[in-house]
Amino acid sequence: MLNVAILGGSGYTGGELLRLLLHHPQVKVTAVTSERSAGKPVFELFPNLKGIYDSLTFEPLDIKYVIKKADLFCLCLPHKKSQEVVFTLHKAGKKVIDLSADYRLKDSIVYEEWYKTSHLYPDLLKKAVYGLSELYREKIKKAEVIANPGCYPVSAILGLAPIIKSHLIDFNSIIIDSKSGVSGAGRNPDLLFMFSEANESVKAYAITAHRHTPEIEQELSRLLGTKKKVKIVFTPHLVPMDRGILSTIYVNLRSSKQLTVDSSRLHKIYQKFYEKEPFVRVLKEGAYPNTKAVKGTNFCDISVFVDKRKNSLIIVSAIDNLLKGASGQAVQNMNIMYGFDETTGLKNISHYP
Amino acid sequence: MLNVAILGGSGYTGGELLRLLLHHPQVKVTAVTSERSAGKPVFELFPNLKGIYDSLTFEPLDIKYVIKKADLFCLCLPHKKSQEVVFTLHKAGKKVIDLSADYRLKDSIVYEEWYKTSHLYPDLLKKAVYGLSELYREKIKKAEVIANPGCYPVSAILGLAPIIKSHLIDFNSIIIDSKSGVSGAGRNPDLLFMFSEANESVKAYAITAHRHTPEIEQELSRLLGTKKKVKIVFTPHLVPMDRGILSTIYVNLRSSKQLTVDSSRLHKIYQKFYEKEPFVRVLKEGAYPNTKAVKGTNFCDISVFVDKRKNSLIIVSAIDNLLKGASGQAVQNMNIMYGFDETTGLKNISHYP
Amino acid sequence: MLNVAILGGSGYTGGELLRLLLHHPQVKVTAVTSERSAGKPVFELFPNLKGIYDSLTFEPLDIKYVIKKADLFCLCLPHKKSQEVVFTLHKAGKKVIDLSADYRLKDSIVYEEWYKTSHLYPDLLKKAVYGLSELYREKIKKAEVIANPGCYPVSAILGLAPIIKSHLIDFNSIIIDSKSGVSGAGRNPDLLFMFSEANESVKAYAITAHRHTPEIEQELSRLLGTKKKVKIVFTPHLVPMDRGILSTIYVNLRSSKQLTVDSSRLHKIYQKFYEKEPFVRVLKEGAYPNTKAVKGTNFCDISVFVDKRKNSLIIVSAIDNLLKGASGQAVQNMNIMYGFDETTGLKNISHYP
Amino acid sequence: MLNVAILGGSGYTGGELLRLLLHHPQVKVTAVTSERSAGKPVFELFPNLKGIYDSLTFEPLDIKYVIKKADLFCLCLPHKKSQEVVFTLHKAGKKVIDLSADYRLKDSIVYEEWYKTSHLYPDLLKKAVYGLSELYREKIKKAEVIANPGCYPVSAILGLAPIIKSHLIDFNSIIIDSKSGVSGAGRNPDLLFMFSEANESVKAYAITAHRHTPEIEQELSRLLGTKKKVKIVFTPHLVPMDRGILSTIYVNLRSSKQLTVDSSRLHKIYQKFYEKEPFVRVLKEGAYPNTKAVKGTNFCDISVFVDKRKNSLIIVSAIDNLLKGASGQAVQNMNIMYGFDETTGLKNISHYP
Repeated sequence: MLNVAILGGSGYTGGELLRLLLHHPQVKVTAVTSERSAGKPVFELFPNLKGIYDSLTFEPLDIKYVIKKADLFCLCLPHKKSQEVVFTLHKAGKKVIDLSADYRLKDSIVYEEWYKTSHLYPDLLKKAVYGLSELYREKIKKAEVIANPGCYPVSAILGLAPIIKSHLIDFNSIIIDSKSGVSGAGRNPDLLFMFSEANESVKAYAITAHRHTPEIEQELSRLLGTKKKVKIVFTPHLVPMDRGILSTIYVNLRSSKQLTVDSSRLHKIYQKFYEKEPFVRVLKEGAYPNTKAVKGTNFCDISVFVDKRKNSLIIVSAIDNLLKGASGQAVQNMNIMYGFDETTGLKNISHYP
Repeated sequence: MLNVAILGGSGYTGGELLRLLLHHPQVKVTAVTSERSAGKPVFELFPNLKGIYDSLTFEPLDIKYVIKKADLFCLCLPHKKSQEVVFTLHKAGKKVIDLSADYRLKDSIVYEEWYKTSHLYPDLLKKAVYGLSELYREKIKKAEVIANPGCYPVSAILGLAPIIKSHLIDFNSIIIDSKSGVSGAGRNPDLLFMFSEANESVKAYAITAHRHTPEIEQELSRLLGTKKKVKIVFTPHLVPMDRGILSTIYVNLRSSKQLTVDSSRLHKIYQKFYEKEPFVRVLKEGAYPNTKAVKGTNFCDISVFVDKRKNSLIIVSAIDNLLKGASGQAVQNMNIMYGFDETTGLKNISHYP
Repeated sequence: MLNVAILGGSGYTGGELLRLLLHHPQVKVTAVTSERSAGKPVFELFPNLKGIYDSLTFEPLDIKYVIKKADLFCLCLPHKKSQEVVFTLHKAGKKVIDLSADYRLKDSIVYEEWYKTSHLYPDLLKKAVYGLSELYREKIKKAEVIANPGCYPVSAILGLAPIIKSHLIDFNSIIIDSKSGVSGAGRNPDLLFMFSEANESVKAYAITAHRHTPEIEQELSRLLGTKKKVKIVFTPHLVPMDRGILSTIYVNLRSSKQLTVDSSRLHKIYQKFYEKEPFVRVLKEGAYPNTKAVKGTNFCDISVFVDKRKNSLIIVSAIDNLLKGASGQAVQNMNIMYGFDETTGLKNISHYP
Repeated sequence: MLNVAILGGSGYTGGELLRLLLHHPQVKVTAVTSERSAGKPVFELFPNLKGIYDSLTFEPLDIKYVIKKADLFCLCLPHKKSQEVVFTLHKAGKKVIDLSADYRLKDSIVYEEWYKTSHLYPDLLKKAVYGLSELYREKIKKAEVIANPGCYPVSAILGLAPIIKSHLIDFNSIIIDSKSGVSGAGRNPDLLFMFSEANESVKAYAITAHRHTPEIEQELSRLLGTKKKVKIVFTPHLVPMDRGILSTIYVNLRSSKQLTVDSSRLHKIYQKFYEKEPFVRVLKEGAYPNTKAVKGTNFCDISVFVDKRKNSLIIVSAIDNLLKGASGQAVQNMNIMYGFDETTGLKNISHYP
């Protein structure tokens, strides 16, 4: 049995880790921390867990004490705070899956530019493995620290990976228009995300300035493998639903390829790329992903279209932002790290509706 | 392995049966019928099942052919239609769980009065067991035909069962005010349940006339066990959410009991009554059930309150109308009928949010 | 032109007053205060008012300064805080419409019991007029201080007024089950009312303890006119929508009246009672009120039903909690106080959907 | 008094016309037709209009009879059906505002290509004026037939008009990603738009194939004024809310202009372009439009951003699809045609929330 501790576990990603790990036969949750809710039983913050985790109580994050309680630590702490905790745990020989942004950007200068704080552990930063299972499975197997990817990046990178290396597209033309449910904003009380403000409304936010931009760019550049850096336009939107991200991605075909690429060929490229992946479903031609079909699951649903009039590709991907976009991806990474079957604890299918 | 067929499986309860039975280790779904969608793969109607049931296709309900395909038949057919199919299957020695209303009302005159059609199989009606597991577990074990309860009745009867037999209440004073998500209205296109009509609105409907009224009355009368018939006031409401029923139940204390009953005593009565039940969670004193905490699960959450100023009890119960109120209850009954562990296939916890 | 100031105007009721008064030809809003948002232009908090009130800026509540700016003061301050401000304004000869609860309960002992704070101005309390226009129109004409009613009480009292004085009902049997949209909880950031918590969920709250209970009881008792006090059971619920209250009210017929009262007779009583009221719509027999049809308006829609099986009345009323339940009612009262046409500024009809 | 008839008035755009024209002091609605609802009073289909239009009843579309009842005809008929009715009314000397797509596309070959039916009145097609008030005000003044624009085109064209003629952008790079509330799908019962299907879900649809594509292209080409045709990528999405369209528009700056254009300069261009428009609000720099702030109004809110890293413009526009995107735009056109003040009947501000 693998003992797992969840640090910063009173938010939605913490709650989902608790839920997913509950039925994982090789794992036991031995501790969950929360400063604000220390002393409260878990089910007071998560009414869905009533009767399930009745003996589990939030404790404060006293690292010296908590460190003894587990072998694997899943961190749902705010960025910056996570930096040091990851370092301390790693130094003590513990394995870490960090759901914050702190170890995702390999270039500490880029990190500082976007997160407005310096990175104190650049060596560990280099060592950390970016935890998008479909792309880094081999590295994840041996990883000691996983930088679990951001929610928008998962939807964008999985949507683009199969063609980014092809010579079909103009990689400078990528535009990602993403629509997220409100749980992506976290669980801290905030006027913007109150029901009466967010309901019956759609809005864009953080235009040209969202912190997931450099993360997507880093991974697309690595996929491309040249020294040229991919730069993208990324616009996130807030949509009145609990969960889900739908990313609509626009890319131009290279002019020399315009005659030869149609939806059917594109579809085959995607099917082939993901044919062995348990959590990526390439939908049949002409079908549209919707977030409802992936909510509560670790799936990423993808469809691809060619706009022959404009020689553009339009790729649509759908995930559950809290699962494939956070806690589900973390469990998938854990399964890979420890040699468990990769789908253990992740077999749930969305209820419909 | 138990072979199960789902008849009339293109609606929400059919979809939920497919989902629940997928991970049930002792069951295999061998057929699913739908007149309107015959020939279509299941995942076309249920995008959540994409990649899961890819080889399963809706077939028309040809009873002579389908009857050979399974041992247990779950019927999600419209009432009246169900009457005959149940009879035919039963005669052929098959076991049946009928999710329609056709075999719930023991008195065929009451059935005719509320459903405006005659009952052609009164003998089988008598034989059928009302499938509320918490109340009829022993009978369900030996049942050949299960009349799976209605969604509102589950929430109402579980909310009232612990006190109906006590001498604490005036059983003539029961008022049940229920609030249901829109999936309770089924999946047939209908202006009333279009998004733009049902969203941002609450309304009562079928006042004094909802067909679940005699079903609740029948079961409360049976619990009471006297020859007096319990009559209730029942008002259903439509609420803008996908799933869930919250029933708020009002009952007067008998005047002689008003001094001695408080919330704490009442709470103990409920805890004791349900202490061995895997799917009923009596919340701690003062906590409020909400439908979000039970969505996607087979749980019924209950809280009880005494209004000392008025000598009334206020009982609140929450279920997922498609699970404990329909398909989850059906699977629980199946588990009991076949001696499987009662929670098999039903261990899911709600994701939050 | 009447100069109006809105004190505590950064919440939803303040925003609605600004909106309603904009097109009122006899009124000018001359000041709006907010401690937290002082210095900000109004449209920053109310994006709907962009381009409309661009020169209006929140100012802090400096009573000596603000008092000179207007003749009528609409107060959207928290209770307790409102007590003193009303007193000060009144002493200075200003007219006041107080949207807080501070001057609604005539009995200061009852106020203290439910609001856990003492009332320092019991004389003014007696003088204040309860501002439910349909019941107190004559008094409102001459009022100096209006205690604008609570949102739930408006829906409950208007639903019950036509029969409370009749000899048809057992006035001890009143049960009010109300369902409210989330805006009723106000605009302060709070976990309970965050989108991801309140969406896709229904719950009851404050059972036996909601502060609108004594307000409803006071007004029903006054309508009854005897020395007997009416006591009610009142249960509020939170429903996932922006606006609206639907109250479902249960009352027993007196046993001697059971043969003679049917839905049709009841309907006529209501029609007659409200026939001259511009904002109460008694729906045709058998129709159901829904909150969508009254959102954004000052209407109260009402339907009445008799449950012949149980000799109960079921009355359903729908209002917009922020309009007839707050700011719309305030404007209606203002119109009455100043002799304006009662519907001025309130002619909006709900857009549908 | 102008007599107005609404043909095909039982859907949402018909309902909004009824609502808007109610308080228009120079207009009287003299007839409203509906085949399906003929004989029913208007308030049965529009519960918001209860007590308002109680004497108005739907009549069947008997053109010989209806034609005498009004001077201006607003048509909310399905496309193809509208073609002939417009022609007949026009021939009889009546003025027409056609809310269908039939007279929007000036090139009847393009019409046939996208609408899969031929256009029988190409001469009248040429005569009809595209009714986007901000662009064609002078022509609208004298128009006899108005082709009222589609909802998506309004949001897209108003978002692009100020820069399309500038030499700042590469007009071949336009991508329009639009998000619409469910009322845009109309009022006919359809599984896709049932609450339980559309709620808690976002999806793209009609990728590369939406019929508003050639309409946007036609108008952008006309604005550009060259013989080159603008071609766009347009992707509509369905979002779980009643009303509203948010369009996020991406355009590349021409390479020679990249140094000189920043958000501030762009903002000024937009402000200047729309400074006299009563219904276009260019938000202050850095602010984000949201659909909640325009719901129920005729406003179009716009913000503009420059992505300096990519030399792209990002333009966000928000409208109410049923108002500025349909019925509100129609009333604005009517006001222009008849010399009424352009804002008459359209002064409503959105309630918030």
